[in-house]
Amino acid sequence: MAVDRSDQNVLHYEHTQEESAPLREDARHRRYTSERSASLKVQEYEKGRGVRRQRPWAVCCRRVFLSWMGADWIFLMLLGVSLALISFLMDVFIFLFTDAHRFLYHLSESNVMLQYLTWISFPLLLMLFAAGLTQMLAPQASGSGIPETKIILRGVIMKEYLTLKTLVVKVISLICVLGSELPVGKEGPFVHFGALCAALLCKFMSFFSDVYKNEARNLELLTAGCAVGIGCCFAAPVGGVLFSIEVTSVFFAVRNYWRGLMSAVFGILIFRLLAVWNKEEETIMALFPTKFRLEYPFDLQELPAFAVMGIVCGFGGALFVYLNGQIALFVKKQKAMKNFLLTNCFIYSGLVSVFISTLTFPPGFGQFMAGQLTQRDSLISFFDNRTWSREGIVEDFHPDDHLSAWKHPQANVFIILSVFVFMKFWMSALSITLPIPAGSFVPVFVIGAAFGRLVGEGMATLFPDGFETEDAVHPIIPGAYAVVGAAALTAGITHTISTAVIMIELTGQIRYGLPILIAVILSNIISQNLQPSIYDSIIRLKKLPYLPELGWGHQEKYNLHVGDFMVRDVRYITLKSTYRDLLKILRTGKLKKLPLVKSEDSMVLLGYVERAQIRTLLQQHAQHLRELVDEERRHASEVSREVHFQRSSEESSGSSAPPKPALKRSPVTETDTDLHKKFSIKNLFCGDTQSVMIEDDSDTEDDVTLRELKEWEGLQLDEQVNFNNCKIDPAPFQLVERTSLHKAHTMFFLLSLDHAYVTSIGRLIGVVSLRELRKAVEGSLTDEGLKLRPVLASFQDCGTGANNFKTEKSDLHKLLDPNPSDQ
Amino acid sequence: MAVDRSDQNVLHYEHTQEESAPLREDARHRRYTSERSASLKVQEYEKGRGVRRQRPWAVCCRRVFLSWMGADWIFLMLLGVSLALISFLMDVFIFLFTDAHRFLYHLSESNVMLQYLTWISFPLLLMLFAAGLTQMLAPQASGSGIPETKIILRGVIMKEYLTLKTLVVKVISLICVLGSELPVGKEGPFVHFGALCAALLCKFMSFFSDVYKNEARNLELLTAGCAVGIGCCFAAPVGGVLFSIEVTSVFFAVRNYWRGLMSAVFGILIFRLLAVWNKEEETIMALFPTKFRLEYPFDLQELPAFAVMGIVCGFGGALFVYLNGQIALFVKKQKAMKNFLLTNCFIYSGLVSVFISTLTFPPGFGQFMAGQLTQRDSLISFFDNRTWSREGIVEDFHPDDHLSAWKHPQANVFIILSVFVFMKFWMSALSITLPIPAGSFVPVFVIGAAFGRLVGEGMATLFPDGFETEDAVHPIIPGAYAVVGAAALTAGITHTISTAVIMIELTGQIRYGLPILIAVILSNIISQNLQPSIYDSIIRLKKLPYLPELGWGHQEKYNLHVGDFMVRDVRYITLKSTYRDLLKILRTGKLKKLPLVKSEDSMVLLGYVERAQIRTLLQQHAQHLRELVDEERRHASEVSREVHFQRSSEESSGSSAPPKPALKRSPVTETDTDLHKKFSIKNLFCGDTQSVMIEDDSDTEDDVTLRELKEWEGLQLDEQVNFNNCKIDPAPFQLVERTSLHKAHTMFFLLSLDHAYVTSIGRLIGVVSLRELRKAVEGSLTDEGLKLRPVLASFQDCGTGANNFKTEKSDLHKLLDPNPSDQ
Repeated sequence: MAVDRSDQNVLHYEHTQEESAPLREDARHRRYTSERSASLKVQEYEKGRGVRRQRPWAVCCRRVFLSWMGADWIFLMLLGVSLALISFLMDVFIFLFTDAHRFLYHLSESNVMLQYLTWISFPLLLMLFAAGLTQMLAPQASGSGIPETKIILRGVIMKEYLTLKTLVVKVISLICVLGSELPVGKEGPFVHFGALCAALLCKFMSFFSDVYKNEARNLELLTAGCAVGIGCCFAAPVGGVLFSIEVTSVFFAVRNYWRGLMSAVFGILIFRLLAVWNKEEETIMALFPTKFRLEYPFDLQELPAFAVMGIVCGFGGALFVYLNGQIALFVKKQKAMKNFLLTNCFIYSGLVSVFISTLTFPPGFGQFMAGQLTQRDSLISFFDNRTWSREGIVEDFHPDDHLSAWKHPQANVFIILSVFVFMKFWMSALSITLPIPAGSFVPVFVIGAAFGRLVGEGMATLFPDGFETEDAVHPIIPGAYAVVGAAALTAGITHTISTAVIMIELTGQIRYGLPILIAVILSNIISQNLQPSIYDSIIRLKKLPYLPELGWGHQEKYNLHVGDFMVRDVRYITLKSTYRDLLKILRTGKLKKLPLVKSEDSMVLLGYVERAQIRTLLQQHAQHLRELVDEERRHASEVSREVHFQRSSEESSGSSAPPKPALKRSPVTETDTDLHKKFSIKNLFCGDTQSVMIEDDSDTEDDVTLRELKEWEGLQLDEQVNFNNCKIDPAPFQLVERTSLHKAHTMFFLLSLDHAYVTSIGRLIGVVSLRELRKAVEGSLTDEGLKLRPVLASFQDCGTGANNFKTEKSDLHKLLDPNPSDQ
Repeated sequence: MAVDRSDQNVLHYEHTQEESAPLREDARHRRYTSERSASLKVQEYEKGRGVRRQRPWAVCCRRVFLSWMGADWIFLMLLGVSLALISFLMDVFIFLFTDAHRFLYHLSESNVMLQYLTWISFPLLLMLFAAGLTQMLAPQASGSGIPETKIILRGVIMKEYLTLKTLVVKVISLICVLGSELPVGKEGPFVHFGALCAALLCKFMSFFSDVYKNEARNLELLTAGCAVGIGCCFAAPVGGVLFSIEVTSVFFAVRNYWRGLMSAVFGILIFRLLAVWNKEEETIMALFPTKFRLEYPFDLQELPAFAVMGIVCGFGGALFVYLNGQIALFVKKQKAMKNFLLTNCFIYSGLVSVFISTLTFPPGFGQFMAGQLTQRDSLISFFDNRTWSREGIVEDFHPDDHLSAWKHPQANVFIILSVFVFMKFWMSALSITLPIPAGSFVPVFVIGAAFGRLVGEGMATLFPDGFETEDAVHPIIPGAYAVVGAAALTAGITHTISTAVIMIELTGQIRYGLPILIAVILSNIISQNLQPSIYDSIIRLKKLPYLPELGWGHQEKYNLHVGDFMVRDVRYITLKSTYRDLLKILRTGKLKKLPLVKSEDSMVLLGYVERAQIRTLLQQHAQHLRELVDEERRHASEVSREVHFQRSSEESSGSSAPPKPALKRSPVTETDTDLHKKFSIKNLFCGDTQSVMIEDDSDTEDDVTLRELKEWEGLQLDEQVNFNNCKIDPAPFQLVERTSLHKAHTMFFLLSLDHAYVTSIGRLIGVVSLRELRKAVEGSLTDEGLKLRPVLASFQDCGTGANNFKTEKSDLHKLLDPNPSDQ
């Protein structure tokens, strides 16, 4: 098999940087070098040391060091430690801030007005600082980070999302935001931190080991990073890893689960050890340990109550996502507001902070919603072992205890809990739309726990002696309902099951495992039918390039085929294309990759060429032309130089005018600059070459030369393209017309594709990109904008077929952020 | 784009049955029908009813019924329920058997000899029945089932592994085996049951919904089935799902995790409810609930002990896998034994049963290893809250309590535990090699728990007052060590982390979560470096088609490329191939799919043709020839009939000989049969057509005709193949030379490929099959046999490069089972 020529063009079919070396020799060389990079490095090191005598132990140490640095476990440990440190330090600072807030508040107890000012100004300052910092230094640090991480893990490159600056800014501003007691969480940012730390560590480790130059591997390590982040945040290794898998991936490699878990365990060990060394804990314990009874955790008759709670939480979760989306859309809709926000978004954040602080002001409305409690304190109180609705219990709460927040002379526990749930619900939905680092997990968790406590207290009131069995009485434990409620509502919003595992690890008790799982699953079923998850909703709102998941209940999707939704009108280049064709294609289309077919008649797909490559081809051609012109000019100039010299010497002797204008108009330089300009990349691809030429003819001195050139150039553009030095990817991903949507979707997810060619016995007949696939999956969604489905929508339209291809033009997309998305 | 011709050949690039309809019109038609299959079915149903008046409510009910039957959740619930029932019924029967065994044993207490006979004969009978049943009815039911399931989930079709017969046989014989108290487990078979139930349910549901005709979806549901099986076995939903993912998949879809978990939760709910209704439990609880203290589970200073235990368990796990492999190889090695086993394998099982029963006979050696305890009882005793080594504790055990098994007048607890660990270790390794349904999880679990208890008792003796903190004394809990030990040893053998989660769910306590995870991870690290997992080891011993996983520490693998290990000498067919070429290729190669290139010069890859298709092409051609011959003969026979008729009438009138010989020799019939024979499939592909012809020339009467035909036929075989009616897959999976091993490996796993073509700008330059990939990944493994690495091997060869391609010819593979594998 003669493969000499084609070998030069071998290019990896995926576009990872390290694999695009065009020359085989070079490739071979690189392969062998990197194979034993460690030992070679040692040799080089030894050589570098030159005459100095070699120390075997030093060499040996270095060898061990280098091989260790390439080992996964070193990376995973470092990752775990760094995230544990971030998590621990953050907790310390947040505690400091909230403590200082309480201290100032109590200091000014003499005067209510002063107290109010203290109450609102402290968070306001923190908030303004956080928002200002984010806006000015790293706008990428705002928001949860889970949506962006999800996109990055799909292989999309998002600029500035994985830099040290973003990490530092996000850590500092998240501390401030959480210190200001806004009802937002830190789990989303921690997924982002995980990815950030992993990316930065990869960069750092690549100094020591070549293994870290493999992009595919680094992407895998990023996945592990996400898992560790959330694990360290909740001290929940298994739950954290599963949660990060569920929210960021559709397909997952078991080895990444492995890596994530290992790193998470190590990180959490450090995280909890730090807590012990800091004297916060006696020994390693769960973050919110519960002490419910072990013998008879729950009666079978309580199961329906747990199930109903799960269903209600499902509706609640969908409502939360809907509300959050509506708020985000409303804010973007207001044109006046938008202009204001773009410049002063941190003032908006401040206003929201003041508004929320005012409502939670403990002597004010806050007394009806336990306003003085931080999220942590409220969670601890919800998981309390006592039954508050029982007579005399609430009255016994000590004023110094944070449980006393639920004690009110007029209102009973039910009212306070209801107000708490209602107020926190919209406050959280509002807060997470702010342009600050903010997660939605923890606030929703708190709301769910409050709702669960409410249900639990209700059950305890209805059945004061619990459900009697033959031999014993087992009263109802409202704290357990809080646990179930928290898990179920969070599941409803995030569309994950692993919240159940996180809950179990967070409370350190698994006896309620089954009720939690049942509630979580029911909540998921309801909310998945009504709304996308909060992260997908944000992805759509931000118009990030995404591919919706094929739910596990949509069997009608299995009957669509690629032939039904592919684009048949494909732009392509052929082996016989001219430079003019290339120019035309570059100007009219926006495709990042162009299929190369053998000829217009055969349409046999040979591979694809990247847009950048085509640009390079044209540049090379331009360069070639320029050289030819230069050559000709040089020849011509040798003839004309004397004439010119004579002329300019005449002028300089005749007047005091500087020689520059004359020089400028000299045919040599003029044409030279002009040609360079003409063939500059900008003109070639952004403007019209011909019009540029005509415009440039203001100086008509060498009109004739230019016109000649233009003609000659036209001929040159009609030359056939020489693809010899062009990198062609010879194995683009191909589908056939009969590939089902389900399979195509799987492929796109598995291989992180953004397009695939549809062929029929080697003949190109169409193309499917992410966009077509998305349209096919979603049907009712427009290709540009977002149509938030009203809650209950899926129950209304359950009779209609799901695969209608009318792309309803929603007006909403016009109102959305006009920033160019990466699609 | 003119795609008329090619459209006829469009074939799905994967070979799922439902997607291979060759004609576009047909495809379209089918698509539209299946799109609204439910409603159409209803309409047909209505039409079928003919004149009878329509009942709207009946139609509505039917519509709802059909759409429900297609819904995932119905399937998942049915799956959960069926597995819960299997698990529950099995437990009931096993309990009955073991109880009966004990009852008979105690009944014959008067005479030791009689007691011994009772003790060994009961398991022997059960064992013989189980082994006989398995061997006679469904040999596929033997063993764990996890290795086979893993292979099936990779897309390999294994006959008879997913049939109702196998299910029934495996359930019955597993009950007998476990009833016989052989130290084997049920978790592996339960993974198999899960897959079986899912496959059978898919078949059943396909009567109601067309969705179940999609093979890809059914494979996904199979994955869910595996998850449910193991979950129902241990009442551990999360752990079960994760375990099944870890042991069966390399990549998994999050939606399958979802499905698995949902089904598992439902199944476990039913499973545990059945236990409550059966009055075994008061309420839903864990299977082996522990009641360790909640306040101060463990001291930080105990962590190193847990870690060391994890490391030791890692070595132990590797040793177990090695031992098991050696036993299996030894049994296969003995030729005499092999012949005996092939015919009487159930006698072998019986012998092993007698041997083991003899050793565990309580009044005999069994008294030193708690022989009378079942696996369940020993587990419960290991998780006991008391410290046995403390003075007076063991003496207090009541004789009726199963804890009394650990009480011995002469030997102390340490000795009994050590003997237990040692004996059970090799007994289990031996038992799971028997040709009966047997899992390795539970026995190893028990051994690990015993080892942990041993360490725990040791720690409690060393530090009788535990580790004192400032204010309180927290004694060491040996039961917790048992929990950690069980998880760690099982992890070492199965190479999974999810054993930690299973452990937590099994004991219903998570306070020891971090120590368990640490021990499990360390155990995994050690054992993964030394041996394959028990399942991979069995896969290799059974020579199933497998692809080794790319460990997460082998960075040198990232520097290999497809060009380094692909096969460059590819067999292919071209558009200009003749029928003779096809015949030759079929006779000489064994490739299941043949690449089709444009021509020998261009080598442009157009797609691939399946072997069966080529066979069909040749058959069609033969049929065509036969028809031509028939035509000619018919014409000729019309001429010769009169002659023949005259001749035969002469013979019949001249003698009493029957007309048959004459008829046989008549040129018409002779040539006809002969031709048919010649062009029969068998001759075309198995024998040499020409030699068949020559041999057939014994009757030389129509020699001339035959020779003529042969020549004519030779010309016909040199005709160019007409590919018009041939199904060509136009989009085979393609790689390029520079694709890294890591990426190729991922692709093969993700897409369940068994081969991929290597191309360079459309030109076929090589092929990579599972075999090449396996060789590249493993390096040191031969392509046919298994080389069990001695324990500690990886520590010995850590200095040598891993990517040497010397395929060391191991002698072992010659001794292995010579059955043709599916490779």
